[in-house]
Amino acid sequence: MASFSISKLAFFTVKCSINRDGHEANRLNIINGIKVNGTSSLSSAPQSDVLTHKEGGSTISVSKNVLINAQEIRQNIPTKKQLVDPFRQGQIVEEGVGYRQTVVIRSYEVGPDKTTTIESILNLLQETALNHVWMSGLLGDGFGATHGMMRNNLIWVVSRMQVQVDHYPIWGEVMEIDTWVGASGKNGMRRDWLLRSQATGLVFARATSTWVMMNQQTRRLSKMPDEVRAEIAPWFVEKQAIPDDCPEKIHKLDSNARYVKSGLKPKRSDLDMNQHVNNVKYVRWMLEGIPDEFLENHQLSDIILEYRRECGISDNVQSLCEPSQVGIITNGVQPSNMISLLNGFSLSSGIIEGKELLQSLNPEPFSYTHLLQAKGESKNEEIVRGKTYWRKKRAMG
Amino acid sequence: MASFSISKLAFFTVKCSINRDGHEANRLNIINGIKVNGTSSLSSAPQSDVLTHKEGGSTISVSKNVLINAQEIRQNIPTKKQLVDPFRQGQIVEEGVGYRQTVVIRSYEVGPDKTTTIESILNLLQETALNHVWMSGLLGDGFGATHGMMRNNLIWVVSRMQVQVDHYPIWGEVMEIDTWVGASGKNGMRRDWLLRSQATGLVFARATSTWVMMNQQTRRLSKMPDEVRAEIAPWFVEKQAIPDDCPEKIHKLDSNARYVKSGLKPKRSDLDMNQHVNNVKYVRWMLEGIPDEFLENHQLSDIILEYRRECGISDNVQSLCEPSQVGIITNGVQPSNMISLLNGFSLSSGIIEGKELLQSLNPEPFSYTHLLQAKGESKNEEIVRGKTYWRKKRAMG
Repeated sequence: MASFSISKLAFFTVKCSINRDGHEANRLNIINGIKVNGTSSLSSAPQSDVLTHKEGGSTISVSKNVLINAQEIRQNIPTKKQLVDPFRQGQIVEEGVGYRQTVVIRSYEVGPDKTTTIESILNLLQETALNHVWMSGLLGDGFGATHGMMRNNLIWVVSRMQVQVDHYPIWGEVMEIDTWVGASGKNGMRRDWLLRSQATGLVFARATSTWVMMNQQTRRLSKMPDEVRAEIAPWFVEKQAIPDDCPEKIHKLDSNARYVKSGLKPKRSDLDMNQHVNNVKYVRWMLEGIPDEFLENHQLSDIILEYRRECGISDNVQSLCEPSQVGIITNGVQPSNMISLLNGFSLSSGIIEGKELLQSLNPEPFSYTHLLQAKGESKNEEIVRGKTYWRKKRAMG
Repeated sequence: MASFSISKLAFFTVKCSINRDGHEANRLNIINGIKVNGTSSLSSAPQSDVLTHKEGGSTISVSKNVLINAQEIRQNIPTKKQLVDPFRQGQIVEEGVGYRQTVVIRSYEVGPDKTTTIESILNLLQETALNHVWMSGLLGDGFGATHGMMRNNLIWVVSRMQVQVDHYPIWGEVMEIDTWVGASGKNGMRRDWLLRSQATGLVFARATSTWVMMNQQTRRLSKMPDEVRAEIAPWFVEKQAIPDDCPEKIHKLDSNARYVKSGLKPKRSDLDMNQHVNNVKYVRWMLEGIPDEFLENHQLSDIILEYRRECGISDNVQSLCEPSQVGIITNGVQPSNMISLLNGFSLSSGIIEGKELLQSLNPEPFSYTHLLQAKGESKNEEIVRGKTYWRKKRAMG
């Protein structure tokens, strides 16, 4: 069980530090006003009551008091409950509990084939989850969770995440992302997402994640206290983006795995705000284990991540990877449907085993099992287990 | 002189390929409609005239004709001239020639210190430049430029880029980015940017870049043909984000450089839509040459990049880096101002050389010279020369 980039972020407040540090930054602005360089827009010294800001032909005058007030100089992240955020193009939906945000796919969020990378999709899931929590006004005051969680010294940690992608958005495409939370067993929380084309409403991707509570001191998992359930239960929605009727178990790979990539070292730029290696880097390390020729012709259709332990800057990471030779033309078909296709076929043909037929149609692997582990001196420690499903690349998205 | 990620993108159209490939993707949607899995939103078979899409309690009906029409299923990047783009929160300003976009800093665009990384700033510059070109309606029909450039078989390549950052936006901050183009000598074009706080109008960063034309076949630089000047000159604005009165020459490092990092290999995920290593990766490679202890306590205030040659997937890259022991507390002070400060001080004190005094105040380097080169069998080829200026890290941004 690992705390992961979304984990602590999910109910994370920055209000405190912004007020304090923003104020500091603001004071520095004034001090720096004197040392302003030739291209600066601050054209009057800070001693005056009004700082004049000249750009593009228009002049904006900012009173000194505004500069003194940190909230004004550094725009606040909204932490009070609000229904619409015009800058983030977000709104509260589903009778006040769900969140919807409009997002345009940017040039740097697509890969060489001009479609969004899986890493960018994971980033957008994280972003919308955080914006949902900000807009809900549920935030406590520290590094974790709600007020009730704070009183019980609890934080959220993510234990599982799954993303299914039917279509990869293209560069410039406008997407609508919905996210909401629900109960997961007695002590957990689910967070789900749906990515839709804004133009047609067609679902491009769906995702689900499971969260549990951990005592920040003991680092042990905790039951959900009644007072916390009372806080968050009103936000729970029953619907599921991906039904969890029988979640697949991911078996643990060992050193016999087909592909083993060692010596992966986190860099400073891989760390998120919690000083942990971010989720996107996990996925990149996993996919690096897969041969390039396969990646060039295939598209990820489903990824499942099971988090075991957090990964820090000092870890020496190994990525293990094992293909499954199931083989089928998997355009958008998920494993469960493939089994019914197989059954249907072998029954009607009555001659050959469906699996053999399909293998002969396309002998390439359609899924991989993954393991990221931290190499220790005495033993290795699991960071994430993963499973990926693939389909042949289509012309676009 | 190198073609670089922004370079070919700057006047790059995707209209053609989207229509064609989008149509293909659309046909696949219909085919895949049959093989839909349990969680799909397509609840009726594609044989029917109407596909019903059910999510979140609301039902959207999409006529089959819409699915047949590629422009409807994959939202088009706007290529016709328009004045406002509500999804990108962009608008044409400055009497119809400049572009302004509102951008919120996302959770994955900030580093461990919760402020925007220089990589994210470069990404946002690229994004706004592209959106400006889309909205201008100037696009030709191929991989390059305007219609006139197409007729002359010319593309844009970037030769120089400079970014100065006074304040790094924090997570969640709302920024306003302005970009515009201007003449650069007789045959070149400048593109400039200003990043402002949306709340206060204070300039956080400014950037400038220089572009020249290259013959796509001969790979040689070209004069700007009159018909191309006639096309683009109406968009030129005279103002400059960073005055170019005396641009600094960056000297070429050799193997005697203090820090040398070899064996840098581009990965598939480092490639942009043009199959070239993207600009952000260049900067990351450059900064990797600088010791971690320095990076932890310092903030980049100014970066200059001189592009020499494009970098592809097969290059074996070496990053060279040499500190300059100038030493000064450089909060927001640029080199030119530092010299006047120095002169001022040594004149008034009349005793010691200002430079020596300042070195004794802070003996740390405040600038680095960089070189990225491709290691060849017989000789090494320059990719980018760079210069970075640094200041002590502030409490925030």
